[in-house]
Amino acid sequence: MSAYIPGLEGVVAARTRLSHVDGQNGVLIIGGMPLETLALSATFEEGCFLLWQDRLPNAAELAALKARMVAARELPGATMDLLRGAAAVKAPVIDALRMAVASLSLDDPDPESETLEAQQRRAERIVARCPIIVATYDRLLKGRPLVAQRPDLGHAGNFLYMLTGEEPDPAARRALATYFLTVIDHGMNASTFTARVITSTRSDLYSAVTGAIGALKGPAHGGAPGPALDMVFEIGTPENAEANIRARLGRGERLMGFGHRVYKVRDPRADVLQEAARRMNEAAGDARLKDLYQLATGVEATALRLLEEIKPGRNLKTNVEFFTALVLHAAGLETDLFTPCFAIGRSGGWSAHCLEQMADNRLIRPSSEYVGPMDRPWVPIEDRA
Amino acid sequence: MSAYIPGLEGVVAARTRLSHVDGQNGVLIIGGMPLETLALSATFEEGCFLLWQDRLPNAAELAALKARMVAARELPGATMDLLRGAAAVKAPVIDALRMAVASLSLDDPDPESETLEAQQRRAERIVARCPIIVATYDRLLKGRPLVAQRPDLGHAGNFLYMLTGEEPDPAARRALATYFLTVIDHGMNASTFTARVITSTRSDLYSAVTGAIGALKGPAHGGAPGPALDMVFEIGTPENAEANIRARLGRGERLMGFGHRVYKVRDPRADVLQEAARRMNEAAGDARLKDLYQLATGVEATALRLLEEIKPGRNLKTNVEFFTALVLHAAGLETDLFTPCFAIGRSGGWSAHCLEQMADNRLIRPSSEYVGPMDRPWVPIEDRA
Repeated sequence: MSAYIPGLEGVVAARTRLSHVDGQNGVLIIGGMPLETLALSATFEEGCFLLWQDRLPNAAELAALKARMVAARELPGATMDLLRGAAAVKAPVIDALRMAVASLSLDDPDPESETLEAQQRRAERIVARCPIIVATYDRLLKGRPLVAQRPDLGHAGNFLYMLTGEEPDPAARRALATYFLTVIDHGMNASTFTARVITSTRSDLYSAVTGAIGALKGPAHGGAPGPALDMVFEIGTPENAEANIRARLGRGERLMGFGHRVYKVRDPRADVLQEAARRMNEAAGDARLKDLYQLATGVEATALRLLEEIKPGRNLKTNVEFFTALVLHAAGLETDLFTPCFAIGRSGGWSAHCLEQMADNRLIRPSSEYVGPMDRPWVPIEDRA
Repeated sequence: MSAYIPGLEGVVAARTRLSHVDGQNGVLIIGGMPLETLALSATFEEGCFLLWQDRLPNAAELAALKARMVAARELPGATMDLLRGAAAVKAPVIDALRMAVASLSLDDPDPESETLEAQQRRAERIVARCPIIVATYDRLLKGRPLVAQRPDLGHAGNFLYMLTGEEPDPAARRALATYFLTVIDHGMNASTFTARVITSTRSDLYSAVTGAIGALKGPAHGGAPGPALDMVFEIGTPENAEANIRARLGRGERLMGFGHRVYKVRDPRADVLQEAARRMNEAAGDARLKDLYQLATGVEATALRLLEEIKPGRNLKTNVEFFTALVLHAAGLETDLFTPCFAIGRSGGWSAHCLEQMADNRLIRPSSEYVGPMDRPWVPIEDRA
């Protein structure tokens, strides 16, 4: 028995071929390739196939996968009822996603089967349905009529369509797919670890992904990309950036969107999302979006300069949250959908980690150190103070 | 960074005052006292208070806790609808419990509050409701009319009443409370660990307990106390025991209900549950129950003798599953309720671990070792084989 290791920091709990985080060099490998190679080119379905199957799909395989994911888009009736019940009390979107995913076993076509094929189909169905749940629930929350899915649209495009009821802008669809791929996996984070622990008991994928959503929900993990954008909006115009950020740092505030536990150089996800934002900006006809992009990049530059000046040597670089907020906002998503969108993307990685765990399973069961008494006496209730 | 530790075996992931498992000496400490002291005397509510508050409640505190738990027995309407939907497709009881608990946040009286008091009330409500969900769902599955809860009955008694619609037998109530307490906590098992990982992200109790149920569901954790009883039934009469068990061992079968990863001597939970079974047997007017008790203890004695003869030195002793099956069956519960009953009991420990984790929190985030390629090329889809 070793000594207590708080947070299991530095303990290697799994071997994986799914992703590699090199924080010293600012490198993130997803499914064997650098993030930027994957996230700016692939569709989300392609990225999921890569993680699930350890190779890129050919055209026929990708078409078949897309068709199966489209076929899974209709939710079980009981799940729909549950979402209506949750909307009636205005439950947070991430809570609705947790409870809805927990119920997705209800129409599993072959719930007893534990073959690899059955597990892969299950993974596809769960991943296919996460955006359906979020879009449906968002409409229910707002009291707007539901929008039927569009089989001709892919994962990201159909999500935007079901949210808005409008033909999704191609640049927004592409940017959203890039976002989902950018967050699809990230080493042994707490939600992925949760999914693997649950899977290690030989439980099912529904249980594992439900648990992972529960872990992602926590602000110490899923974070809050909203506040990074709030700062940008509060600053309002580029010339206000310096005074505003100086004042925040002077008050000892942490700048949301800057600094990361693992990355000591610029978070590679920030680069990819900045490029996605730049491409959206280039394609945008909307002057408001162009202004926001200019403002955000100006705020970023000022923040980096002031962090270096005021906290020299701390290496506080732009993290994934800053450009997440920009990309998701520009794609038309409201702040309360940011963490649910994180879950939509990460579901690809969670399910792949579950399949990987199943393929070479061993129960994950650490130990605890007992620090309580050993001989507390039983006192009859009438004698207790 | 350390080397990969499969299953995190021997890694101390938490300090806890909730329970201590000493497998070498066959000792289990719960809330500071030996299991047998607690489980044969306390009500389940008293045991939960002990874990949550680190002391036994006085009469007024226990009455107040019981009143709050009774007040929580009515489930949210959306949860009831979900259970009806699950019953319509005959979902397994443990799946129904997972999805129902995932939805219990819907009527949280103060969902935003993270004060200790709000968290404790949440723990009470979740624990109070697990048996309500299981009993309600069992009736729905069987197409029987629902039974309203009885505020005058405690946790275990009301569960039996809502399951059967009949006044629960006092010996069965007591035995069931002893069972719930016997499994209330057990060190850093996979479901408890799941609950702590989810809590460590600063997520909520609903998410943590839902994840834990998902982990308990796996046969490598929640196990299958059913088969231990199946063997007893198959043996049928004491004189068949030797031939039947010899044949099983001759075929290389593992005897369900014997042997444990941690306990090298007799599982202390087996002792306590055997005593609970003995007391039920003493009180029973039912000859069928008396016969079953005689048969089970005869089967146990024969199994232990043959294991020692055929697998000498392996120290395969009676584990918790053997007497779990006997106690739960004698209390009138069918096999498909055994794992859900395990969850009902363990919910006390899960929620206590969540509160303990919250009180001294640090994100639980181990590492992974990457074993995939680093430079997989991006191949345009038309060029893929």
